[in-house]
This record gives sequence, C-alpha cells and structure tokens, in this order.
Amino acid sequence: MRRVRFRDPAGAVRYGEWNDGQIEFGDRTFDEDEVDVLAPCEPSKIVCVGRNYVAHADEFGNDVPDRPLLFLKGPNTVASHGSEVTLPAGKDRLDFEAELGVVIGEQAKDVAEADAMDVVAGFTCVNDLSNRDDQNRETNWVRGKAFDGAAPIGPVLASPDEVPEDAAVRSYCNGELRQDSTRSLMIFSVPELIAEITSYMTLEPGDVVATGTPEGVGKLEDGDEVVIEVEGVGRLEHTVEIPSA
Amino acid sequence: MRRVRFRDPAGAVRYGEWNDGQIEFGDRTFDEDEVDVLAPCEPSKIVCVGRNYVAHADEFGNDVPDRPLLFLKGPNTVASHGSEVTLPAGKDRLDFEAELGVVIGEQAKDVAEADAMDVVAGFTCVNDLSNRDDQNRETNWVRGKAFDGAAPIGPVLASPDEVPEDAAVRSYCNGELRQDSTRSLMIFSVPELIAEITSYMTLEPGDVVATGTPEGVGKLEDGDEVVIEVEGVGRLEHTVEIPSA
Repeated sequence: MRRVRFRDPAGAVRYGEWNDGQIEFGDRTFDEDEVDVLAPCEPSKIVCVGRNYVAHADEFGNDVPDRPLLFLKGPNTVASHGSEVTLPAGKDRLDFEAELGVVIGEQAKDVAEADAMDVVAGFTCVNDLSNRDDQNRETNWVRGKAFDGAAPIGPVLASPDEVPEDAAVRSYCNGELRQDSTRSLMIFSVPELIAEITSYMTLEPGDVVATGTPEGVGKLEDGDEVVIEVEGVGRLEHTVEIPSA
Repeated sequence: MRRVRFRDPAGAVRYGEWNDGQIEFGDRTFDEDEVDVLAPCEPSKIVCVGRNYVAHADEFGNDVPDRPLLFLKGPNTVASHGSEVTLPAGKDRLDFEAELGVVIGEQAKDVAEADAMDVVAGFTCVNDLSNRDDQNRETNWVRGKAFDGAAPIGPVLASPDEVPEDAAVRSYCNGELRQDSTRSLMIFSVPELIAEITSYMTLEPGDVVATGTPEGVGKLEDGDEVVIEVEGVGRLEHTVEIPSA
C-alpha cells in the first residue's frame, strides 16, 4: 500500500491511499492538484547516513567508513512534494542527493537487526540537500545539511513489501537522469542502520532514517526541477530557488 | 521572573513561578518534591555550540573557531531536573559540561544581533553530556552528543533580566566545584549565536541554544551527582547511571 498525507480542500489533514497521482480517502477521490500534499510524516529528527555507497564515497575521495557515518537534520529541514525550496544564498555548490528514506512506525530503542523491520512504517523518497561550501568548513554538518528545507520528503509512504531489496534509487535534474543506483549497493542495510542508531537513541514514530546517496550527486542552479525516485515508492518532485546573495 | 514546568499531583502539566524550591500556580503552592519537575520547554531541536570559551578549547588542544562550531541534539536527548540519566555503557570517558541554555520564545529566522534578545524567552541550565569515546571517532557528533538523555535541562526558565551579563556558569560533581567561569568569557555572545544560527535555520518556540562550556569538564562515574549552576537561573541537579557493559 502507498499512502500520502495531505490537506484536503476543507483544510483537514488526512492520510489517503495513493494511486498514480490520485488520492483516495473514504469515498472521495482527489487529484493531486486539488490538495496540498504534505510530507508523509512529522519527524522529531531525521537521522542521516553519509558515505553509505562505495561509489559515492569514492567520488569525493572519502574512505568507506567502518560503521555508519551519522548526522542529524532537525524538523526545520522538512519540505514537501511539489514545493519550491529556497536554498542558502551566496554559495558556490548546493547539491541534490537521492536517498531511500525509512519512516519509523513505533518508538524504538535497542532494536536487534532481526527485529528492525518491525519498527518500520514504510519507505519514502528523500532529497538530502547539501550546502558544500559550509559542509566542507565545519566539524558538524549543521550549516551544510540542516538549513531550512534541506530535506524534501515524500510524497508516498510505501509499505515495505512494495519496495524490492534491489529497488532503484535515482535522481533527475531538469529531466536528465543523474543518479541511478540501487538499494542493494548500500554498505549498511536498513536493519543494520536501525540497530546501530537505536543502540544510542530512541527513534519516534514519524522519524526518518535517510540511508545515504549513491554516486552522481550534482550541483543545483536557481529554478532547477529535481526528481528523486525510489522504485516501489514513486517520485518526489520539487524546484529550488537560490536567491542572489 | 523564574518559571518552572511541572506535572501537578493531578497529572496536569502547568507552568508555575519558582521561589527557592517552591512552585506557585494560581492560589496553590507546591514543594518541589510534591510534583514532577519537567524540562522547562519542549525543544524541536537543541542547537549546541562547541569551543565557545577559549580556556575550554585549550584544554582539549583545539583552536578557537572563527565562527561558532554548531552541532545538534534531538528531542530524544532532553532529561529533567531530579532525574537519573542512563549513559551509554562500555565507554571510557563520559563527561559533564555546564552550559547556559537559551530558550527561544518565538519562531525566528534571519534575526539581526540587535534584535536577538526579542526572540529569547529566557535562560536555563544545560548539561551537555558527552561521550568522548564516540565523539573522538566520528565526523558528526551523533553517538557522542545526541544519545538519549544527553541534555539535562532546567529546572528554571529565568527571564533575561534575572541573568547578569557576567553570570557565573558552574558545575559540581558530588558536591565538588569543577567548573567556575562566566558568561562574559564566551567567544560568541548570545545575540551573535542567534544571528548566526537563524541565518541558516528557523528556531521554534521552546528550542534551546546551548552556548558552550567553559574549562574544567570532567569524567563521570556510575552514581555521580551532578549540579549545573547558572547565576540568576539556579541549579539543575541530576544523577547518572552507567550500566556495566
């Protein structure tokens, strides 16, 4: 099943079933354009994973880590499908990064790998927007990764059975395919990530684990249209605005 | 004014006025022991500042940064006055760090230094608990700084006029004074921090800026009693449990 969270024409927030751009809720069916599509969850935190694909670590000359490289994005980073995301002004290099997002379904601490999928509500698409100018200058990637709007998420929350183990993870910029990899090339799997993260912190329902991006990340320009696609989930689309400094 | 958030004997969450361990709400007065004292706010994120006192940067051999070193703690890190905080097991070095906490009072983005105090609800005490074993091994300090309970906060939210510009910032471990500095020795002031942070991210009401710790941080052992004291705010007290690995 694929679900989408949306604000209906009366202003109420609902969870409907998603069928190719149509949203079913009760006995009503809405076109995507009739409603405000919201992020599929309201994370208290987004736990992100860096360098989780060998070929992406290589493209920036980084070693493959011996355990997951974790970083955090706050709720201020959430942006939704169909939105225009305003990026920091005056930077040389602002990048898209296609990622499989894991949405947590229940409060979870010290979860064993074998039980990890029990706490997963489903999968979604994440764009881990990155401000390299600052990321490359700072100890913790706060200005670089946790600026407002740095995590477009959605639109679909797909149940795990919809998403194959070798699901494609892709990005397109202005219609051109830029990243094209698969979940099966992750260094640390979703259960391994959940086990490691929850050995230190409690995950809450709606929290998101962004599982890292494959090779092919690229620079964004003002007005670009970005699509993040995860096979079995669907497509997250948004544009970017880069104000002049 | 000094306020405290608490759960009254009937289970309702209230904000009362704090007078030396007594809490006044409406026409009732509670002793601190009669109620559950809660963290004074519910942050969507805690934005922490590293190396904001020269003498603390020196004690770990770090350079003084040319702009604030920022890192994040999620809501999972919040712990309250009077609590027992369970720290990660199997680590060699778990430290206390006394800090002045700034509690945000209204949604804030792109705030000028001159206007920064307008978005501040008040000040509190923060213990920036740190797991050095992992902090020293990771790119972003997630396992090192964002584990569950890593941010005891409170109990008092003091209005800014209660806290002098040269307020003492102190810690005690098992009654022994361990840190004893003053807010006036911060490298980046509260208005400078708010201006810098809000140039990248929106702060929400209840968010906390933890302004960095002075020299004298030290190692915790199982059962230790920690007090964080900020002049004009009061004392945050908690114990720590360190499970055997």
